[in-house]
Amino acid sequence: MKTRRSDRLIDMTSYLLDHPRELISLPFFVKRYDSAKSSISEDLAIIKRTFAVRGLGVIQTLPGAAGGVQYLPGVNSEIAGDFLKLMTLKLAEKERLLPGGYLYLSDLLGNPLYLKMIGRLIAAQYVDQQVDAVMTVATKGIPIAQSVATCLGVPFVIVRRDAKITEGATVSVNYVSASSSRIEKMELSKRSLAEGAHVVIVDDFMKGGGTIHGMHDLLKEFSASLVGITVFAEASFAGQRVESDYTSLLNVVAVDTQNSEIKVELGNYLDKLSD
Amino acid sequence: MKTRRSDRLIDMTSYLLDHPRELISLPFFVKRYDSAKSSISEDLAIIKRTFAVRGLGVIQTLPGAAGGVQYLPGVNSEIAGDFLKLMTLKLAEKERLLPGGYLYLSDLLGNPLYLKMIGRLIAAQYVDQQVDAVMTVATKGIPIAQSVATCLGVPFVIVRRDAKITEGATVSVNYVSASSSRIEKMELSKRSLAEGAHVVIVDDFMKGGGTIHGMHDLLKEFSASLVGITVFAEASFAGQRVESDYTSLLNVVAVDTQNSEIKVELGNYLDKLSD
Repeated sequence: MKTRRSDRLIDMTSYLLDHPRELISLPFFVKRYDSAKSSISEDLAIIKRTFAVRGLGVIQTLPGAAGGVQYLPGVNSEIAGDFLKLMTLKLAEKERLLPGGYLYLSDLLGNPLYLKMIGRLIAAQYVDQQVDAVMTVATKGIPIAQSVATCLGVPFVIVRRDAKITEGATVSVNYVSASSSRIEKMELSKRSLAEGAHVVIVDDFMKGGGTIHGMHDLLKEFSASLVGITVFAEASFAGQRVESDYTSLLNVVAVDTQNSEIKVELGNYLDKLSD
Repeated sequence: MKTRRSDRLIDMTSYLLDHPRELISLPFFVKRYDSAKSSISEDLAIIKRTFAVRGLGVIQTLPGAAGGVQYLPGVNSEIAGDFLKLMTLKLAEKERLLPGGYLYLSDLLGNPLYLKMIGRLIAAQYVDQQVDAVMTVATKGIPIAQSVATCLGVPFVIVRRDAKITEGATVSVNYVSASSSRIEKMELSKRSLAEGAHVVIVDDFMKGGGTIHGMHDLLKEFSASLVGITVFAEASFAGQRVESDYTSLLNVVAVDTQNSEIKVELGNYLDKLSD
């Protein structure tokens, strides 16, 4: 059915948001809306401008027969900064403190609105690089991986410490859990990652970095390459990190169990974003 | 800054999609766009029409001082039917068959586009009921719970078979895993669910239904009430189910390990949707 501009703008916005990084040919929209190519191009110019102004990301048009339009999710540093400041306050709430100096995070990582922003922030770093999959380790990393993967339009894969029968054949590596100083094992289903894939690793919390390092090792077993590592929060009080090149949204600087105080600062995300 | 209609339509669409079921006051949009209330009302009428035509869901306007606009995600039965038919084909791929008659699902449940549709389909059933949280059990249920919770604009909570130190105090129940006929234990962090909450339970795969039944029992410990149960796939070949009132998107009717054949049909979702 033939459509009006207003209808096209609404549906196109929804379609583009739902298909990040996918190259969509103009003929696809021409057919979807039974409209002239010139009208579609004008629509896209309007959407491009609004997305830029509102900090929703970049609409990229590639010319030529193999061309089309592509939505690259993004975030401007003002929105990112505001959100990260909110998160530092949330993370410093003393009720989060658990015996042993652990922090309760499940409410933050079970909140869809926060997860969307976390996903957008992390994805924004990799949006113009080749990424084939997002990797994390069960359990708490999963919601973050899903949010990032949704933003990047790629699948996510879950490494497990206790691979189940429903995973089929797996590849495993040993890793040193720095917080417990024990050697443990993590496994990934063999068919879940293609050889040579370009992978972003994410996790909720990094103390010593042993778990992240284990995933990095696992990539080698799949001849996969690392695009980057980002964690929601790092615990800089935990001392030396095994991995050196990573991004953190938040940094837990100190945990004082005696006085129930948690000191949280921004991680290195904003510095890296402006690089 | 004062805005044009086209810009408002694009940003409003994005905002509404990002805030499902949230009651947004018209003054919020009036301020956001520095535009007259009458213009905003016209914008919303256009968005309402397009969302309806495109099967994106319902835009509901509530009049009065406490009123506003609300986006209720939905799906029309044609889109739902097409997607579910695709899923039956995917699920029946013989490569999924693992030793013991288990099915490999991680690729489907790690695909953001599929997850979005699964979330929309499941959420559509509960969109006009009070829902305070979505509950699932680790690990494979998590992506489904996150998608449904995102669509409903509520948090999701994760029940664990091996609660970690990072969960704080937990409440646990025992349940009978019908597939293994063993008694096992599942736990939920005490602070993750408010007393009296209205909860939707989701999971990836239901054989005997013991796990689902365990979560149902757990709700009682929190004085929470069950809104509904939906699983991605049920295995009707596994015989009698412990829970009787549930929705399934797909139904695995038979698994023939000898000839590597998996027989998959539609679950009861479409029947329930048209009720």
